[in-house]
Amino acid sequence: MLNVGIYGASGYTGQELLRLLIGHPNTNVVVVTSRKLKGIGVSEVYPAFAGITDLRFVDSSPKNLVSSCDVVFLALPHGEAMNVASEFVEAGVKVIDLSADFRLKDVSVYEEWYTKHNSPDLLLNAVYGLPELYKNDLKKACLVANPGCYPTGIILGLAPLLRRGCIDTASIIADSKSGASGSGRDLQLGSLFCEVNEGFRAYKVASHRHIPEIEQELGRVAETAIKISFTPHLTPANRGILSTIYANMKEEISESELVDMYKDFYRNERFVRICRQGSLPNISSVRGSNNCDIGLAVDKRTGRVIVVSAIDNLIKGAAGQAVQNMNLMCGFPEETGLNHISLFP
Amino acid sequence: MLNVGIYGASGYTGQELLRLLIGHPNTNVVVVTSRKLKGIGVSEVYPAFAGITDLRFVDSSPKNLVSSCDVVFLALPHGEAMNVASEFVEAGVKVIDLSADFRLKDVSVYEEWYTKHNSPDLLLNAVYGLPELYKNDLKKACLVANPGCYPTGIILGLAPLLRRGCIDTASIIADSKSGASGSGRDLQLGSLFCEVNEGFRAYKVASHRHIPEIEQELGRVAETAIKISFTPHLTPANRGILSTIYANMKEEISESELVDMYKDFYRNERFVRICRQGSLPNISSVRGSNNCDIGLAVDKRTGRVIVVSAIDNLIKGAAGQAVQNMNLMCGFPEETGLNHISLFP
Amino acid sequence: MLNVGIYGASGYTGQELLRLLIGHPNTNVVVVTSRKLKGIGVSEVYPAFAGITDLRFVDSSPKNLVSSCDVVFLALPHGEAMNVASEFVEAGVKVIDLSADFRLKDVSVYEEWYTKHNSPDLLLNAVYGLPELYKNDLKKACLVANPGCYPTGIILGLAPLLRRGCIDTASIIADSKSGASGSGRDLQLGSLFCEVNEGFRAYKVASHRHIPEIEQELGRVAETAIKISFTPHLTPANRGILSTIYANMKEEISESELVDMYKDFYRNERFVRICRQGSLPNISSVRGSNNCDIGLAVDKRTGRVIVVSAIDNLIKGAAGQAVQNMNLMCGFPEETGLNHISLFP
Amino acid sequence: MLNVGIYGASGYTGQELLRLLIGHPNTNVVVVTSRKLKGIGVSEVYPAFAGITDLRFVDSSPKNLVSSCDVVFLALPHGEAMNVASEFVEAGVKVIDLSADFRLKDVSVYEEWYTKHNSPDLLLNAVYGLPELYKNDLKKACLVANPGCYPTGIILGLAPLLRRGCIDTASIIADSKSGASGSGRDLQLGSLFCEVNEGFRAYKVASHRHIPEIEQELGRVAETAIKISFTPHLTPANRGILSTIYANMKEEISESELVDMYKDFYRNERFVRICRQGSLPNISSVRGSNNCDIGLAVDKRTGRVIVVSAIDNLIKGAAGQAVQNMNLMCGFPEETGLNHISLFP
Repeated sequence: MLNVGIYGASGYTGQELLRLLIGHPNTNVVVVTSRKLKGIGVSEVYPAFAGITDLRFVDSSPKNLVSSCDVVFLALPHGEAMNVASEFVEAGVKVIDLSADFRLKDVSVYEEWYTKHNSPDLLLNAVYGLPELYKNDLKKACLVANPGCYPTGIILGLAPLLRRGCIDTASIIADSKSGASGSGRDLQLGSLFCEVNEGFRAYKVASHRHIPEIEQELGRVAETAIKISFTPHLTPANRGILSTIYANMKEEISESELVDMYKDFYRNERFVRICRQGSLPNISSVRGSNNCDIGLAVDKRTGRVIVVSAIDNLIKGAAGQAVQNMNLMCGFPEETGLNHISLFP
Repeated sequence: MLNVGIYGASGYTGQELLRLLIGHPNTNVVVVTSRKLKGIGVSEVYPAFAGITDLRFVDSSPKNLVSSCDVVFLALPHGEAMNVASEFVEAGVKVIDLSADFRLKDVSVYEEWYTKHNSPDLLLNAVYGLPELYKNDLKKACLVANPGCYPTGIILGLAPLLRRGCIDTASIIADSKSGASGSGRDLQLGSLFCEVNEGFRAYKVASHRHIPEIEQELGRVAETAIKISFTPHLTPANRGILSTIYANMKEEISESELVDMYKDFYRNERFVRICRQGSLPNISSVRGSNNCDIGLAVDKRTGRVIVVSAIDNLIKGAAGQAVQNMNLMCGFPEETGLNHISLFP
Repeated sequence: MLNVGIYGASGYTGQELLRLLIGHPNTNVVVVTSRKLKGIGVSEVYPAFAGITDLRFVDSSPKNLVSSCDVVFLALPHGEAMNVASEFVEAGVKVIDLSADFRLKDVSVYEEWYTKHNSPDLLLNAVYGLPELYKNDLKKACLVANPGCYPTGIILGLAPLLRRGCIDTASIIADSKSGASGSGRDLQLGSLFCEVNEGFRAYKVASHRHIPEIEQELGRVAETAIKISFTPHLTPANRGILSTIYANMKEEISESELVDMYKDFYRNERFVRICRQGSLPNISSVRGSNNCDIGLAVDKRTGRVIVVSAIDNLIKGAAGQAVQNMNLMCGFPEETGLNHISLFP
Repeated sequence: MLNVGIYGASGYTGQELLRLLIGHPNTNVVVVTSRKLKGIGVSEVYPAFAGITDLRFVDSSPKNLVSSCDVVFLALPHGEAMNVASEFVEAGVKVIDLSADFRLKDVSVYEEWYTKHNSPDLLLNAVYGLPELYKNDLKKACLVANPGCYPTGIILGLAPLLRRGCIDTASIIADSKSGASGSGRDLQLGSLFCEVNEGFRAYKVASHRHIPEIEQELGRVAETAIKISFTPHLTPANRGILSTIYANMKEEISESELVDMYKDFYRNERFVRICRQGSLPNISSVRGSNNCDIGLAVDKRTGRVIVVSAIDNLIKGAAGQAVQNMNLMCGFPEETGLNHISLFP
């Protein structure tokens, strides 16, 4: 049994990690930290855990966790993870960071979109935690930068097209729609029920911090620099991200060829499911699972391909992918503890 | 007082028309028809009307309505309106048709996307009922083709850019999200609460019947043929359509210039509201009103303009616009009976 | 035209009042106050008002309002209204207070459930603002205590039974379910979308502050002291309260007799609608209107009567009833500015 | 491995059973039947199962299933299960029936509330499948009548009080609120998204068919005939039932005593969780799990006890409880395949 800790476990992602790790056959969660909830039982904050765990939130330093944990998940705000990661890494504790702090390879890009970076050295060690693209690197990683929720669905949706080189890389537009848990559990006016329910809106148009991350990874797959337009939206649902992605095709491809191409590209990937031709994904079909469902359409009239991908933002978009990365880092079968069938309805 | 009838009033659009017309100071609703609900009181089917009206649905022929109505609204399925419209028009009854039957000027296009057209002659008489573009024609119209819900938001969102000629007309992509009332009140699996709630999906990608309507009207504004990519989505809300529209800019324009340009274009239009720079619309801000809210953003990195428009699909996207058209046709001030402030939250 | 002010207008109730008063033919809203939003335009905080009003929130003292207002609505937290009401009343400005401060006739009861009362003298002047019961008093009132949202639906639901004396007054149980806007716009964890959506819970069981108000008013109607059990619940909807009320019958009454009895009791009341026998209310049929819908059932097997009432908590449960009270106080027809048909769906 | 079949698997309960049984370590689902969906892949009807199972719906007779199944779950409409159950029972196939057909011990009561009963003999064999009350009987059962969703939460909520004899059994009122999946996947107007969303209503007041089932079981626990008032409501959520239950106390009991009494009563029950004093359940804390959460409050002012219970109607209220029963019948540990932690948010 692996001893694991969750550093910064008070939010929706933290408790989702806890849920997955409690159900994981090879892990033993020994500590969950939260400064503001210290001393409070997890099940008091999240009654779903009543009778399941007696863990209490503690306010603990990295030093304390080093002695008790083999693996640590960092579920901290951007800008904080980089302050504690090195202490774990140096002590040989495997780290999976769910923030953006180690995702961007180019420090200057990070600093342009986020804040000053305190641990640029560690960036070299960090592996971008998208298992479908970087499995071999992840098996050897000691520090994993777990991808953002939007990037996960968009990169998985575009990778086969980019690898094949059949789309105009200057034409990519990703229009994404996220459930409200993506905004976290902080008290914000825009997160109130009455503000979200019966509403629908775009936000951070052409300025969301996931843009450089998406572009970095699309560029690596395409082996060329890529700029995209990305618009996130808030939809009145708890979980789920659906991304509708547009690109101009450089060659004529039929829908059935596309479906075959995607099935082939992801043939060894347990968590990517390609919809049969004529069918498109729904976030309700991935809710509660680590799956990414991808549907494909060709707009013959305009020469565009339209890719639609769906994930559960808290699982494949965060906690589930983190566990998938842990599995790879620790030599467990990739799907261990992640075989949940989606909960519908 | 004008005597008005609603032909095919059993659905969400029909009852919304009734709501607006009962509140209209110059109209008297004398008949609402429905074959399947004949004999049943409106307030039994829609309890919101209890104590408001004693009207009962009747199964009536056009001939019967001719004698009692000055204006008739047709809220019939596509393919049925064209069978009854001529009888009203010939008798001098003003007709506002909420179906697609008289929207497409080119019969062959209609027949390609819908079905065989039985009244091609009437197409010449029909005026496309988007008051912000065709006000003068509407004042003289006897037959109005009330626009589709998606086209309304998309055309209003793009008209200023197309009139100015500053975007690449081959680059237009409209990604739209609609509440569930857009699917009507028919019993369909995909309309069940448990199928829609906590879900989000695209449908009819690159094949929705509103495409030729949108392209026709954008082409008229731009004075050139236009093809677009259009993807409708279903979002778990009762009302509202938000359209996120992308286009490549042919010249550099700042966001503040854009906002000014739109404000100027719509300076005389009571129902189009341009968001101030940096602000974007939300369907919850137009719910229950005839407004179309438009927000503008420039994606400098990619040279694209992003227009976001929001309407209440049952009002500006259907019944409200129909009443607006009636006001123009009958010489009432355009906003008569349409001054509802949005209901929030 | 009456000049009116809203003192404490930043919340959902305040903006709903503003919506109703802007649409009222006899009022002119001259000032809306908010300490924390001072200087900000109403339409920036509530975009529904864009293009409708140029009002800005001001941080104003009662003294300032006295000179400009004929009527003032107090939409302040409990415990604050009592500090400002007297200044208005003394200056001859009519006051409608939407807090609990003047609802309870017995100061000691108020102080037991709320806090110390600073204006006990004013309690004598205050009229409980339930027009269906106290119309004549309200016509002469200068200070109206607008009822709580839960009390409104429960009192209207029970009054006919209590007046007739046909139920055991010791057996009353009111089980109420409210939409989330009842919690206001404050930043509370329990008001977040993800906490409310897909959830359902009871709160403040047997301890909600509306209990003494309900009991006071039921007791006045019954002319005997009454104690009830009251359980409020939170349901994932924006608006609406449905109350299911149980009582043991002292005599056998059929459902049709009950319906007739209720129709007779409320025969002159425009805003109370009695459902026909066999039919029950739904909050979706009163949303956006000032109506209270009441349905009746007899549980013959157990000898109980079950009353179900539905209101829009922001309208008949708050702002709409306040306007109804203003109409009575100022000599306008009671329904002026309140003839909205419910918005469905 | 046990071979199991689901007879009538097309609805929400059927697919939930399939989800649980696929995840169960000791079962192999060999057949799922549906007349109307025969030949169609499960994953085409429920995309959540894509990549999980290749099962297709078949239209099969009981005879065919007998040869391949050790256990059969009947998820048929009321009145149909009784026609097929005997064939399975006679062949030694264990049967868990999720309909009402074998729940009521008294044929005349069944026939009063449902329809003519074709297999009254089998009623003697059937064990009511509430494991917390009838564990020993269930271990020997060959035919289990799986409880209704409402009865499950209400009976578990009242059993400790009735066993102790401390409430007036004539005073019980159960006010229940259910998510929309309780109405199934049939095409009904009242199940449409726009009819349910933003709505809340009571239905079948004092006439719901679960009444005789609840009364039978409460009577068995109390060892006296009991009549209750029961009101079901529809709340806009996919899953979950919250029941608020009222009863007059015959002796004074404090909340802490109550909590202790319940904890003691259910001390060996893995799936019943008693909330700590002052805390009440929420359907969102049991969603996706087989738990029944129970909270307790004392209304000292009126001498009533208020019990609030929450379950996931599709799991503890249907499919999960059925699997729990199967575990008991087949000698597996009771919680096998049922250790899901609730999915929140």
